[in-house]
Amino acid sequence: MKMKIVLAYSGGLDTTVAIRWLKETYNAEVVSVSVDVGQLEDFKKIEERAYLAGSVKHYLIDAKNEFAERFAITDVIMNGLYEEVYPLATALARPLIAEKVVEVARKEGTEYVAHGSTSKGNDQVRFDLALKTNLENVKIIAPARIWKMTREDEILFARERGIPIKTESSKYSIDENLWGRSIEGDSIADPSVEVPEDAFEWTKVRSNDKLRLSVEFDRGLPTKLDGEKLSPVDLIRRLNQIVGSRGYGRIEHLENRVVGFKSREVYEAPAALSLISTHKDLEKTVLTPHELRFKRYIDSLWSDLVYQGLWYEPLRETIENAGKELNKWITGEVKVEVENKSLRIVGRRSPYSPYSEKISSYNKGWYPSDEEARGFIEIWGMHSILSKKARYG
Amino acid sequence: MKMKIVLAYSGGLDTTVAIRWLKETYNAEVVSVSVDVGQLEDFKKIEERAYLAGSVKHYLIDAKNEFAERFAITDVIMNGLYEEVYPLATALARPLIAEKVVEVARKEGTEYVAHGSTSKGNDQVRFDLALKTNLENVKIIAPARIWKMTREDEILFARERGIPIKTESSKYSIDENLWGRSIEGDSIADPSVEVPEDAFEWTKVRSNDKLRLSVEFDRGLPTKLDGEKLSPVDLIRRLNQIVGSRGYGRIEHLENRVVGFKSREVYEAPAALSLISTHKDLEKTVLTPHELRFKRYIDSLWSDLVYQGLWYEPLRETIENAGKELNKWITGEVKVEVENKSLRIVGRRSPYSPYSEKISSYNKGWYPSDEEARGFIEIWGMHSILSKKARYG
Amino acid sequence: MKMKIVLAYSGGLDTTVAIRWLKETYNAEVVSVSVDVGQLEDFKKIEERAYLAGSVKHYLIDAKNEFAERFAITDVIMNGLYEEVYPLATALARPLIAEKVVEVARKEGTEYVAHGSTSKGNDQVRFDLALKTNLENVKIIAPARIWKMTREDEILFARERGIPIKTESSKYSIDENLWGRSIEGDSIADPSVEVPEDAFEWTKVRSNDKLRLSVEFDRGLPTKLDGEKLSPVDLIRRLNQIVGSRGYGRIEHLENRVVGFKSREVYEAPAALSLISTHKDLEKTVLTPHELRFKRYIDSLWSDLVYQGLWYEPLRETIENAGKELNKWITGEVKVEVENKSLRIVGRRSPYSPYSEKISSYNKGWYPSDEEARGFIEIWGMHSILSKKARYG
Amino acid sequence: MKMKIVLAYSGGLDTTVAIRWLKETYNAEVVSVSVDVGQLEDFKKIEERAYLAGSVKHYLIDAKNEFAERFAITDVIMNGLYEEVYPLATALARPLIAEKVVEVARKEGTEYVAHGSTSKGNDQVRFDLALKTNLENVKIIAPARIWKMTREDEILFARERGIPIKTESSKYSIDENLWGRSIEGDSIADPSVEVPEDAFEWTKVRSNDKLRLSVEFDRGLPTKLDGEKLSPVDLIRRLNQIVGSRGYGRIEHLENRVVGFKSREVYEAPAALSLISTHKDLEKTVLTPHELRFKRYIDSLWSDLVYQGLWYEPLRETIENAGKELNKWITGEVKVEVENKSLRIVGRRSPYSPYSEKISSYNKGWYPSDEEARGFIEIWGMHSILSKKARYG
Repeated sequence: MKMKIVLAYSGGLDTTVAIRWLKETYNAEVVSVSVDVGQLEDFKKIEERAYLAGSVKHYLIDAKNEFAERFAITDVIMNGLYEEVYPLATALARPLIAEKVVEVARKEGTEYVAHGSTSKGNDQVRFDLALKTNLENVKIIAPARIWKMTREDEILFARERGIPIKTESSKYSIDENLWGRSIEGDSIADPSVEVPEDAFEWTKVRSNDKLRLSVEFDRGLPTKLDGEKLSPVDLIRRLNQIVGSRGYGRIEHLENRVVGFKSREVYEAPAALSLISTHKDLEKTVLTPHELRFKRYIDSLWSDLVYQGLWYEPLRETIENAGKELNKWITGEVKVEVENKSLRIVGRRSPYSPYSEKISSYNKGWYPSDEEARGFIEIWGMHSILSKKARYG
Repeated sequence: MKMKIVLAYSGGLDTTVAIRWLKETYNAEVVSVSVDVGQLEDFKKIEERAYLAGSVKHYLIDAKNEFAERFAITDVIMNGLYEEVYPLATALARPLIAEKVVEVARKEGTEYVAHGSTSKGNDQVRFDLALKTNLENVKIIAPARIWKMTREDEILFARERGIPIKTESSKYSIDENLWGRSIEGDSIADPSVEVPEDAFEWTKVRSNDKLRLSVEFDRGLPTKLDGEKLSPVDLIRRLNQIVGSRGYGRIEHLENRVVGFKSREVYEAPAALSLISTHKDLEKTVLTPHELRFKRYIDSLWSDLVYQGLWYEPLRETIENAGKELNKWITGEVKVEVENKSLRIVGRRSPYSPYSEKISSYNKGWYPSDEEARGFIEIWGMHSILSKKARYG
Repeated sequence: MKMKIVLAYSGGLDTTVAIRWLKETYNAEVVSVSVDVGQLEDFKKIEERAYLAGSVKHYLIDAKNEFAERFAITDVIMNGLYEEVYPLATALARPLIAEKVVEVARKEGTEYVAHGSTSKGNDQVRFDLALKTNLENVKIIAPARIWKMTREDEILFARERGIPIKTESSKYSIDENLWGRSIEGDSIADPSVEVPEDAFEWTKVRSNDKLRLSVEFDRGLPTKLDGEKLSPVDLIRRLNQIVGSRGYGRIEHLENRVVGFKSREVYEAPAALSLISTHKDLEKTVLTPHELRFKRYIDSLWSDLVYQGLWYEPLRETIENAGKELNKWITGEVKVEVENKSLRIVGRRSPYSPYSEKISSYNKGWYPSDEEARGFIEIWGMHSILSKKARYG
Repeated sequence: MKMKIVLAYSGGLDTTVAIRWLKETYNAEVVSVSVDVGQLEDFKKIEERAYLAGSVKHYLIDAKNEFAERFAITDVIMNGLYEEVYPLATALARPLIAEKVVEVARKEGTEYVAHGSTSKGNDQVRFDLALKTNLENVKIIAPARIWKMTREDEILFARERGIPIKTESSKYSIDENLWGRSIEGDSIADPSVEVPEDAFEWTKVRSNDKLRLSVEFDRGLPTKLDGEKLSPVDLIRRLNQIVGSRGYGRIEHLENRVVGFKSREVYEAPAALSLISTHKDLEKTVLTPHELRFKRYIDSLWSDLVYQGLWYEPLRETIENAGKELNKWITGEVKVEVENKSLRIVGRRSPYSPYSEKISSYNKGWYPSDEEARGFIEIWGMHSILSKKARYG
């Protein structure tokens, strides 16, 4: 019986070439799996391409809703921004894609699974660990870690075999899903060089008028835009559209990869950035300073785990549950203004905010007496002052 | 002999009334001290007002350079942003003003010192602790914690005594220095209501053209704008002017005060925000991920200590020294674009960045083999995967 | 109608005097409440003393089980040790006592509540905040913060009024409950002087033979000693007895009080220390390193909140829930040896431990290849090595 | 010309076999290097064994003082205990041994360096990264990662070639230096089984009398025992002897290795544990609570970096410098009692401790007034209480 390999298939050059390479190299049957996590692709064409490259069976799995609900929205709850800026779009999709690939592998009765990641990237870590966790005895094949072909070699490989590849006029290599778009390419690798406008698609400025927007959260979950209730997928799509059209949502920085080096990374994520910044503001409106400092700590821990391929590390779930518990009170509205590539929060309200005009106003209400205030200040600074005296006399 | 009280005098309503109130209440001589920390005031007029209110002697102390070098620039090194947004302008000036007041008290041979803070604010904590630390046996009098006058009462008090007060057409109460402008007032206390344009002064949009700017750092210190070497005071002034003219530098949020409640706070700080964001970007460009996570931790710790009036807590200096040590390598240039109330970093370079095209490029250089990559991934995720198995079989 | 004050009554000198002082000072009826949290007291005698001092009504509330289950056992789950050593016995009892006092105040229809703490201690913080949280509009009276009597003054006050006080031959002031015994007194205040043997009661060495003991945990809860299932109260009592008899369970250190200074504190807590050390060992046996570091972080955070009187800060519950979630897997047995004032863990096992002889043995099973190991090491240290090169060439 | 390999040579079975294996496998000259880091070995015999196994040149480098001063004493300053228990003896020696090996490689003009670590251990990580950092273009050969021999295979290999090996009657595999002794072996791998007495050597109970000891620190450095000034090496040796003779200094736990799994580890480290526990006590005596929490955080960070082979990560030095800065004030004396496998601190004093009897005594000195105390408590708990109200009404 022939070896059967289930391949996570994006439809791009690498994985298209991989279908044929796997078939030839291992004398294997290749089953291709495309997972719809919200990328704007023609899945019909992707299927055709898979078959033309040599796939014996193609699966298209619609995981948009699951991706939005289980991954993207959790990224809002946890304010997931790796190194303070990157909302983890690709990192979040990898475990889900791997789970779907494993489902297919189970159905197809094989332990051989393949993905298109190289040995320099973070994605191999995310894929491999997700596959190992979900399929005991999985045998992972990552052709791009083995074959040592350059992009040019791959194109040649495809041409020689008459395999049609996606005609990418783009000079960039793109990974896209509902939550964000990642842009790579040697022309934007140098962190000192400005990223050219043509790298951006979701955040091309298409509208110059100022957008005023209300975002409502219910227990931490974004539920309404301008008062209209929307499903997670629709709410994210809508935000990507209207906020992106004002040019907001670009990210570029020098990122510390899990595989040991820094690389310039460029992303577009209008919905993610809008939701995380409004959500953080609402958390600050409601939580005590003790809760807030703890939440920011677990936010950052969660982002690191997700980025670093440790989605299945059990701590991820524990801190996520703590985050969700704190979000029981994150209900309310945040108002923003978006224009000219920027978003500003202009107001917020929550029924659970301890803010009280009577307490904070200088003109009324509660006022500590002079003696009470002195008592607080003396005790508050006492350890520090006593130490200074003990040291310097 | 008469009791002599040295008062930190801003020239505003509270402290002007305080001069007379102290004189009457304690039958005391009041010595007024104004400290120039870069606020745009007519110090001649302030002096006149002090004498008219009853000061027996007025000191004007120019501490602009010391404020810039010892406080504002350290805020850049430590990326000091309380609760991720507020660059601590007022919080940083208080210890310095207190030190100058103590110098005058020593010269005047008295232990009685007064300041204008109320019992609801953070500033009393900063003033009291700075005074206690720097002057043994200090006797602190904070009239506004004692007298229980409203703003209207104060105005009446001044009128009845013919004391000229600053004719504040503004409905806001302002505290200003080189590093930022803080705006308070009951009309902007409600966090759900948008702050009106007239509250802002430094960040009124006065220019619509896009500003491209290069900021250079030398061992963490900002030294040049567009290649021109500037002193700290001049560099900050220049940035406040040119970046503020594009409307960038506004901050508003619901802030957790050290005295126990949340209040809506509004600030303008174009130079501070520009320098901190470019400095953070350069740190990320240079530091290892281990260093970066540690630095962000001490950044936040430092901000908390400074905000909370604990400038003289010895830990502040220790973590500041650690921050400075890490900044030995933060040399380089960051390029930004400023327009329409927003600032975007577009590129950066540092001679000490470990970024290497050869290593990060997908098309060349260093490549781990398939087996090396597998080895890394297996060991990297092993604790997590073994635990899952031990728990769920 | 007469003012009615509900007093938390321990039966000691301070609160006995307080009954009469409150009655005289406020012309009030005093209702006394004693809460049994496991202290070894003659509650009959305490009641008599309350009435003789002037109480109009005495309540004895048995809260032993609630204290053990809701507080002491949670201290095990959270490895609650303030500043790494103090298992929080007194700190944990205060909120519970306050809750019981509030129940009585509600029943008695009054808002006036009193406790015996001074203005130098931590307990006033714990009492006041617990009372404020649980009884809206509570009026708190702390006689010892007001009356300025020394111990000698109090004894005189009682004698003059013919109030019998507890004949404390002891030179120490003791606070005791199921979870620990705290010993204070001027003769042991100096941290450089050794605490004399007569300060200790629970840990007097009464047995010289080596105790071998098995402690079993079920989802983090200690349930069995040497295989015998015991209720929390019985298990703690048994441990205090048998472990204490070997002299184990003493604590003395220089403690940072919440009210601003360091003080020498002395405790006995054989059960608490035994359970926390075995529990921590079992956590290390089961949890991943990611989980373990997080757990130690929240352990310390929880201890600080509890010590500092912030039992009702909502974060306390959130991190406790995270701790409990991680403890779902903390099931197993830890074996210890106790003798001569020391306890040593000698072995442990858990069905959920990922420990595997096959993996850890140098003589068999899993072995990374040379290339895999090199791959791991290279990537693991790469950020650090690249940075060194970028800095020093 | 023949390839020349410089081997870190311990004199044990693995590295003795490695000499010959390297020679045969690479047709190479092997230069052996033994580094004296305080292990109690007969270095004359080690040299003989090296030559008999085939070394062409043997170096013995005395690095005892450097190890004590630069590594062991820093472990005291940083309270270095991995996972709260292991004082890092082996982990600290590896970078130093690697540096010495690199010195020899430079002198011998070769880039080939070898060490005896396997692919399952932490030591390979420490060796490899130290070698890579200190010798550009180093070629590392770790025979035990390549050859796949069991212990039995190695013994056979040696016998067949007539190579004398250390007659280890011991069933354990030992690594020893001045700072500690690590004991491994399959018979003690199971964490549920008690470690037999014969595994221990340094902590065999040889004396039953109670030892009272004074340890003095000067700026964090341990300098005197019972008033006698000693060099670091002598002080550590003395402590290992006298404290070890009472049976104190044993460690066993289930340790999280950097290479992905848990293993049972057993150590002896009487001096290390004594010095770290007294040093921590003195730090608590002197530092403010702010400093103390920060110090414990960097202590743990430092321990992780050292354990995980990241000695050359630049952050290690930065946090070490912060630790040293805080230790400027850690001067004073700690008194301990050692007997029957346990050590107890009984008193301490420091000229820089802010402890003050006048402040902490309940019978005298400073006392906050009722109003001052209430002021402190109200503000201290206010954020928490306001939040409860906002949430639950």
